[in-house]
Amino acid sequence: MTTSYKGHKPPRRGDGQLPSRRAVLGGALGLAGGAAASTVARAAPEPAITDIPPWMRYLGDPVDAAPYGMPSEHEAHVVRRTVSWLTADNVSSINFTPLHDLDGIITPNGVCFERHHSGAAHVDPAQHRLMINGLVDTPLVFTMEDILRFPRENHVYFLECAANTGMEWRGAQLNGCQYTHGMIHNVMYTGVPLRLILEQAGVKTNGKWIMPEGADAAAMTRSIPIEKALDDCLVAFKMNGEALRVEQGYPLRLVVPGWEGNMWVKWLRRIEVGDEPWHHREETSKYTDLLENGKARRFTWEMDAKSVITNPSPQAPITHGPGHTVITGVAWSGRGTVPRVDVTIDGGKNWQEARMSGPSMDKSMHRFYFEFEWDGAPLLLQSRAHDSTGYVQPTKQQLRDWRGVNSIYHNNGIQTWYVDEDGVAENVEIS
Amino acid sequence: MTTSYKGHKPPRRGDGQLPSRRAVLGGALGLAGGAAASTVARAAPEPAITDIPPWMRYLGDPVDAAPYGMPSEHEAHVVRRTVSWLTADNVSSINFTPLHDLDGIITPNGVCFERHHSGAAHVDPAQHRLMINGLVDTPLVFTMEDILRFPRENHVYFLECAANTGMEWRGAQLNGCQYTHGMIHNVMYTGVPLRLILEQAGVKTNGKWIMPEGADAAAMTRSIPIEKALDDCLVAFKMNGEALRVEQGYPLRLVVPGWEGNMWVKWLRRIEVGDEPWHHREETSKYTDLLENGKARRFTWEMDAKSVITNPSPQAPITHGPGHTVITGVAWSGRGTVPRVDVTIDGGKNWQEARMSGPSMDKSMHRFYFEFEWDGAPLLLQSRAHDSTGYVQPTKQQLRDWRGVNSIYHNNGIQTWYVDEDGVAENVEIS
Repeated sequence: MTTSYKGHKPPRRGDGQLPSRRAVLGGALGLAGGAAASTVARAAPEPAITDIPPWMRYLGDPVDAAPYGMPSEHEAHVVRRTVSWLTADNVSSINFTPLHDLDGIITPNGVCFERHHSGAAHVDPAQHRLMINGLVDTPLVFTMEDILRFPRENHVYFLECAANTGMEWRGAQLNGCQYTHGMIHNVMYTGVPLRLILEQAGVKTNGKWIMPEGADAAAMTRSIPIEKALDDCLVAFKMNGEALRVEQGYPLRLVVPGWEGNMWVKWLRRIEVGDEPWHHREETSKYTDLLENGKARRFTWEMDAKSVITNPSPQAPITHGPGHTVITGVAWSGRGTVPRVDVTIDGGKNWQEARMSGPSMDKSMHRFYFEFEWDGAPLLLQSRAHDSTGYVQPTKQQLRDWRGVNSIYHNNGIQTWYVDEDGVAENVEIS
Repeated sequence: MTTSYKGHKPPRRGDGQLPSRRAVLGGALGLAGGAAASTVARAAPEPAITDIPPWMRYLGDPVDAAPYGMPSEHEAHVVRRTVSWLTADNVSSINFTPLHDLDGIITPNGVCFERHHSGAAHVDPAQHRLMINGLVDTPLVFTMEDILRFPRENHVYFLECAANTGMEWRGAQLNGCQYTHGMIHNVMYTGVPLRLILEQAGVKTNGKWIMPEGADAAAMTRSIPIEKALDDCLVAFKMNGEALRVEQGYPLRLVVPGWEGNMWVKWLRRIEVGDEPWHHREETSKYTDLLENGKARRFTWEMDAKSVITNPSPQAPITHGPGHTVITGVAWSGRGTVPRVDVTIDGGKNWQEARMSGPSMDKSMHRFYFEFEWDGAPLLLQSRAHDSTGYVQPTKQQLRDWRGVNSIYHNNGIQTWYVDEDGVAENVEIS
């Protein structure tokens, strides 16, 4: 098998060929034995540890220093980032979660990516209302206080923009998993099952679809089948324990577990019940997949299983040189859990099962690790998710074979990072 | 049974007697049927909903407005708070998590309570080192980069200060669950099992205890048995996905699941292995329970099962008047999970099982709800946790019968809120 790659920019070797020197690789080191640990650490030369560091010589911050706390000044680089050329205006645009700086499965609220169609609306919760109308027995209007009188549930769900990884359809473009895969976040929501609110209004027998509407200037709308609305959708008011952030729909957003992010209408003000879909802008000219034959897939709601290695990656090189190395990443599926992720370090010649760690929850992000001895030879890293339905994450080429190259949305193809001898990673594609 | 109560200040009825008018109460309404929802909402009079609210008339914030986001301006009251008279100085003090403003089980990093013995140290991670010394085969010093080469795990754990609810030992004192129960937070940690780090150094056969030491000016230390160190302790560097906050030990803290918070040494710089406990300040004069006979309980590490109703509570009254009402709260146990919480609205005459919602994880916080029809009569609210070992949360009087009234630490007694006809709640005690 001849393996070539093309990068966002030419990799340092520049010859488009895989280096001939191959890594001699250990297996994935599990946690069960002490073997993993015994090869891990270089015991650093003692840097005057007997000296008292400066922060032990003075009293630190008092407990009233920051009623609402912020990250350390040493973590100022851990932020959402935008891509200036991506959209005409930043009020109808997107920013990206810094996946390469995070670990575990919870995305902190401060760095959850944002996608707005007319900017983040600042809604006064005291004035906010949610209306249920259309094919219902009793049209209703709820205050926020009314919503809080319904029974609540708590669930951790990923939210992925349908366009996540969309710039990569025709080849490797963006050098960093924040940009290629950062249109996703994973938080714990507290909300009211939409079913209970709809039951209160009484859905008529011909009520087959709902249309949630946002209180932003775009009055964002999507059509959602009543079966999903009555299944697991939430009208949420908290994320990770506290109120929704403004940019995530404060004070109320629709949660549509496993389905594409634009359906999770923010600043939720109205839900209309109808007998057919509305065919609005966001499900016709947008959020459809244009195929080679000129026809378009639409109502492609469910997010397919996907994974990405977050470390190392272009924004997060290996800095410690050869030896014991931890590869980590995240995986998710709109259809359930991800019980298994495979990792390859040689561009797919050999796959090994990664170690999952952390809670495995339905339609939530999962964290995987793969520990190995790096001999310093270049790597071609990939991960491949298997979800609880048996679905296996495809290659990008498989997706193109199926759908052509006009698509933007629903690119869940396997991502490749090339890592050179210095540990520097680049976005490449194997063909 | 005659029931009386004494409050932090006299409740409005002022007579110390329970009102004779008793609530006629519905059962806890589960989520399974539509019955709960059908009685919930007052359909609010429509407040000119056909008018377009101001935030729909203008474009909102662009996506580059806040690289690291903050809560809405309408949530400015959701903050950690201190009690000015509690300690002599705010660098050796505590603040409190606003439990009454939160929901679900995750505590957002910005409002995780702080307890410092010499203020929050600002440590430079590039200069930080972790030393393992004492009864080990090979003393070792690790950089942060070294730590990141060990296998990692992800777990959600509560951290409760041993002194949480300590001011309530002799009677109801503080009017708000933030103050009575807010020395707790619950986050997802990413870290290295301490076992792997100790195995790297090689614990000698006579190594029976460890002493973690912090890099703050207090050089905080505690003695921990080696069995716990090798069981589930983590050397953690992330909380809720991002780096530890400065006030939570950035860049490294010890996680000691289920055990009292002062053992979770922050700014972790050294772990000494020894053959016996060190009997340091924080396990002799402090963090011991003085009994009636002058002897003290110590090494009382494990946090007993506990619960508290967070809403309604003194800082969070019922504002919507009689009718369908949601009671909610949190429960936890240092010995496992909390599969069951009971709630009473009549001061313990009748108990009903609450509805748990959200992930149930070992040594993590659990969320419970209890929905009922409030007829507007005063309430005496209590919750009672049952943990997975069968342990049942005791009354405060039972704790006093066992340990006298000199204790500060480990008060896991049942909390009572008196709620008057206006929905205003007060901290009271039933005797």
